[in-house]
Amino acid sequence: MTLLDESASGVFVIAVTPFGEDGALDLDSTDRLVDFYLERGVTGITVLGMMGEAPKLTAEEARVFVRRVLRRLDGRVPVVVGVSSPGLASMRELSAAVMDDGAAGVMVAPPGTVRTDDQIHGYYQGVAEALGPRTPFVLQDYPLSTGVQIAPPVINRIVAEVPGCVMLKHEDWPGLAKISALRAASDRGETRRISILTGNGGLFLPEELGRGADGAMTGFAWPEMMVDVWRAHASDEVERAHDLFDAYLPLARYEQQPGFGLAVRKHLLARRGAIASAALRKPGPRLTPDDIAEIDRLVARQERRLKEIG
Amino acid sequence: MTLLDESASGVFVIAVTPFGEDGALDLDSTDRLVDFYLERGVTGITVLGMMGEAPKLTAEEARVFVRRVLRRLDGRVPVVVGVSSPGLASMRELSAAVMDDGAAGVMVAPPGTVRTDDQIHGYYQGVAEALGPRTPFVLQDYPLSTGVQIAPPVINRIVAEVPGCVMLKHEDWPGLAKISALRAASDRGETRRISILTGNGGLFLPEELGRGADGAMTGFAWPEMMVDVWRAHASDEVERAHDLFDAYLPLARYEQQPGFGLAVRKHLLARRGAIASAALRKPGPRLTPDDIAEIDRLVARQERRLKEIG
Amino acid sequence: MTLLDESASGVFVIAVTPFGEDGALDLDSTDRLVDFYLERGVTGITVLGMMGEAPKLTAEEARVFVRRVLRRLDGRVPVVVGVSSPGLASMRELSAAVMDDGAAGVMVAPPGTVRTDDQIHGYYQGVAEALGPRTPFVLQDYPLSTGVQIAPPVINRIVAEVPGCVMLKHEDWPGLAKISALRAASDRGETRRISILTGNGGLFLPEELGRGADGAMTGFAWPEMMVDVWRAHASDEVERAHDLFDAYLPLARYEQQPGFGLAVRKHLLARRGAIASAALRKPGPRLTPDDIAEIDRLVARQERRLKEIG
Amino acid sequence: MTLLDESASGVFVIAVTPFGEDGALDLDSTDRLVDFYLERGVTGITVLGMMGEAPKLTAEEARVFVRRVLRRLDGRVPVVVGVSSPGLASMRELSAAVMDDGAAGVMVAPPGTVRTDDQIHGYYQGVAEALGPRTPFVLQDYPLSTGVQIAPPVINRIVAEVPGCVMLKHEDWPGLAKISALRAASDRGETRRISILTGNGGLFLPEELGRGADGAMTGFAWPEMMVDVWRAHASDEVERAHDLFDAYLPLARYEQQPGFGLAVRKHLLARRGAIASAALRKPGPRLTPDDIAEIDRLVARQERRLKEIG
Repeated sequence: MTLLDESASGVFVIAVTPFGEDGALDLDSTDRLVDFYLERGVTGITVLGMMGEAPKLTAEEARVFVRRVLRRLDGRVPVVVGVSSPGLASMRELSAAVMDDGAAGVMVAPPGTVRTDDQIHGYYQGVAEALGPRTPFVLQDYPLSTGVQIAPPVINRIVAEVPGCVMLKHEDWPGLAKISALRAASDRGETRRISILTGNGGLFLPEELGRGADGAMTGFAWPEMMVDVWRAHASDEVERAHDLFDAYLPLARYEQQPGFGLAVRKHLLARRGAIASAALRKPGPRLTPDDIAEIDRLVARQERRLKEIG
Repeated sequence: MTLLDESASGVFVIAVTPFGEDGALDLDSTDRLVDFYLERGVTGITVLGMMGEAPKLTAEEARVFVRRVLRRLDGRVPVVVGVSSPGLASMRELSAAVMDDGAAGVMVAPPGTVRTDDQIHGYYQGVAEALGPRTPFVLQDYPLSTGVQIAPPVINRIVAEVPGCVMLKHEDWPGLAKISALRAASDRGETRRISILTGNGGLFLPEELGRGADGAMTGFAWPEMMVDVWRAHASDEVERAHDLFDAYLPLARYEQQPGFGLAVRKHLLARRGAIASAALRKPGPRLTPDDIAEIDRLVARQERRLKEIG
Repeated sequence: MTLLDESASGVFVIAVTPFGEDGALDLDSTDRLVDFYLERGVTGITVLGMMGEAPKLTAEEARVFVRRVLRRLDGRVPVVVGVSSPGLASMRELSAAVMDDGAAGVMVAPPGTVRTDDQIHGYYQGVAEALGPRTPFVLQDYPLSTGVQIAPPVINRIVAEVPGCVMLKHEDWPGLAKISALRAASDRGETRRISILTGNGGLFLPEELGRGADGAMTGFAWPEMMVDVWRAHASDEVERAHDLFDAYLPLARYEQQPGFGLAVRKHLLARRGAIASAALRKPGPRLTPDDIAEIDRLVARQERRLKEIG
Repeated sequence: MTLLDESASGVFVIAVTPFGEDGALDLDSTDRLVDFYLERGVTGITVLGMMGEAPKLTAEEARVFVRRVLRRLDGRVPVVVGVSSPGLASMRELSAAVMDDGAAGVMVAPPGTVRTDDQIHGYYQGVAEALGPRTPFVLQDYPLSTGVQIAPPVINRIVAEVPGCVMLKHEDWPGLAKISALRAASDRGETRRISILTGNGGLFLPEELGRGADGAMTGFAWPEMMVDVWRAHASDEVERAHDLFDAYLPLARYEQQPGFGLAVRKHLLARRGAIASAALRKPGPRLTPDDIAEIDRLVARQERRLKEIG
């Protein structure tokens, strides 16, 4: 099994967790979803992401789900598993299990209790020790959700001292200056250059790529948007990248509403045939007829606009 | 002087506060800015908004700035003044002063210390008592900034018991369901129907209008976007409203980055001739060449797209 | 097995989790600790409390630890198990397991994401549904740690609608008025009278008992303080209750320092022979010589004072 | 007028703001309160503290109150004025005014929006620039209220680079290790040794003095407790310091309840004749008969205990 390293790029889509109407894990849809993502050109898949429904799974369900994803993928693209946990023992246990099963790496966000620069740095040292030297990990920087502000010098210090940190999932907002600061530091040779994949539903993807990000790690029911924008950007077709991005932006914006957006995403994925049911495990929001009418309009407009730009 | 009431609609633009390069209030630019906003069709102006640079003004500067805006406007559109304050005495003092000077109403966000339903309700009862019966006020609901979650039943209870509350500045995110809930309550005759103007940089304006909002109260360097979307919606040209919105969305999204966005907005307003200098009073972010290149591209694309849709 | 109900009173001590110097669970010390607590007269034991080291255990370790406590106790006093979790499925799973093993009930604190009155109420409805009708539970109200403010009417509403809620772990600060409000409501017959046990290291225990609390559920290396204060209060020896309380207060205050206090508690429990090692599992604070000198002085003074009051 | 410097020690009592029953500033009580504090041996007075009722004053009232305190004191002890403000312009204005009137220095807490080490450091650089080189200031470190965690290296860096920072108001909790870390740094000659006065209602005063604090800056209706503990400690009578402290601790603990405690303090100050009315300006808590009965008991016990220890 190939391990995650600093050269990772492209789109690591954050996978939803499919449930049936009865709330049970839907493993058939898990297969279908993996196929769907692969067909859209993703270069990696991230599961058990913090903002999704991973916390709604039991430990056993989480294991089963990850194994199913890994088996279906059969090594075609790498899998990153979110293992953030209030305790290092649980993190180590889950991490060891999924790495044994074939994951390429894990992802860890800091708990809200670490606040100062030294606390954040110390936390990731503890994480690295808990994970062990053979498990590469992604530092997840998502202040809107964690409440933890990680300054670029702190990230650089972690990268310098913790070899296992090979990727930043960048989800600060505003966050463009942070990408520039990190790339400037590695360009000057002050730190190792790690992979930076960006989040926030891709809402700043063209600019993030321009600042030196290597791609995206986030969710959107049209992952091909992120794939196509990334490819266009990689081919120096920057205006084309923006054209594509702009065509999807109205719907991406709608899907990026905190909490509620996951219901929109699953609705759209079900509509696209990627999963059987749009159900969220309880507690979770439900779409109203007003929501669905708005989504229908946005989808129709998106299809029209995509045809226009060809 | 006309007072704000429940019938307010359209676009109450949140005005920036113009400073010179030396950090002094720029009163000439204040006049120019007022003219600029009027020419773009705004139906009201809101000053001393919480997220802008109002807290950087001294009490005296705030008074001078409000008076200048009021004098230049000369009653052509109503002015709402943000008077949120940790203490009711200061709030009362500023409120009385600006109402004497000709403001149409004031706006109050809750302090982060009120949390439960009863605390929020009690806070606005205290506000109403402090402001007195002749000062209409706007309830500012902006959880991302205040940390205070105000449920629809709490808003309805305040509206029912506090006659001075005539408008909701709606800035919850996600917030569409909240508009629907409030409108359903007033449609059922359970509460007075107040004006709802929406915030968040207008990023959900078409949907918000569809849910029953009366317009927007937010900032964007192209206020004509909000005016035109609102007018198109009012004329039942919903697809046209979306076309306009979509053309501006990439730049609006860029301008809506928390904190940083205000520097973008001032840069754009200076570029459009509405103010002399893009300077923020310290401390404040500064645009880098990378930022400006991104903005230039977005402006050029926006102009092109606006021509395409005619 | 007897289930927890509204008549619970006395001192449910929050048990520490004993580890060896190597960080492994120390099950022999678990037995010793249980004996120690019983000898001091506790009327119940609470394990896997939120603020202790429960999050540092793996799911399997947590199960093993709870079973060991239950086996050693052999039904002599009831055990409450903290099962707070970001997801209801994990909560249900752990809860079902420990109830099968012989726990008397479980304890649930709200996640920081529920904020409004309705959200809190809805959350506990979901909890009750997840736990099922045969698992009594304790509502843990600890705003300093959770960030969730639960007003008395919300607690009353949960008590009225959710039969499984039989106890409040009261840990608001200030919180005396809350006890009075809850007791007034049940005295007026408006709600079921549930058990109220108080937290915060017992630092307000005499006043809390005076307001109608039924005892304490918290930790302190001298649980006999809480037991004796509760007994004296129950015998209407209120001044005696205060004398006892005051003798222990300087050390109790020292042990109640957030985060750090747990290291103090384990140091003192090891010193008293209740556990073999004072070690905290990493990451955790370590006592310095200055800390230990302060503790030594406080212990010596406490012993002297206890002799004086007889 | 003498300016505050690094040699400040003893007890800078945080003064309450006296109001009449009608909510108006009570200037006669202000005089009486100043006399009361002086008679108890305080070595300084701090006004307009963040957690008191300063935010309830208008700008003009704040000026009037500070002037009254300064006039009554007539230079007998130095006055520190809290000038924390969301904006530097207001801070500069108030600071310049009170320094002109004869204050010895000002005190500034960081706004909740600064989070990383660099942001905190940058904020105090901006503060120093705004205050100017002739205004010494106190860095107020109170995470429970501000939400800002300031690590010792950040304080050391501010002290090293900002000459105007002459004192730390230490109010972290737990905070003993922080005092030790700061004193170790200045003992090693790495930083200037500044004055450290501690807060938190004096609840850790004996230990804080043992760690190297120079005294206290906090409120308590018996300021002589802090003065006597400080004097005993300065005379190396450490057990005596603890005896005194322990006698007052039950009431000090009661008065230190967040928010509510201020009503207790004013009740006690009125009872001791230091102010005419215990009234808080609205909104503010009111004592119930239960509260007052608890306080009466604690005061009686305190008097008895003080007699016992002589």
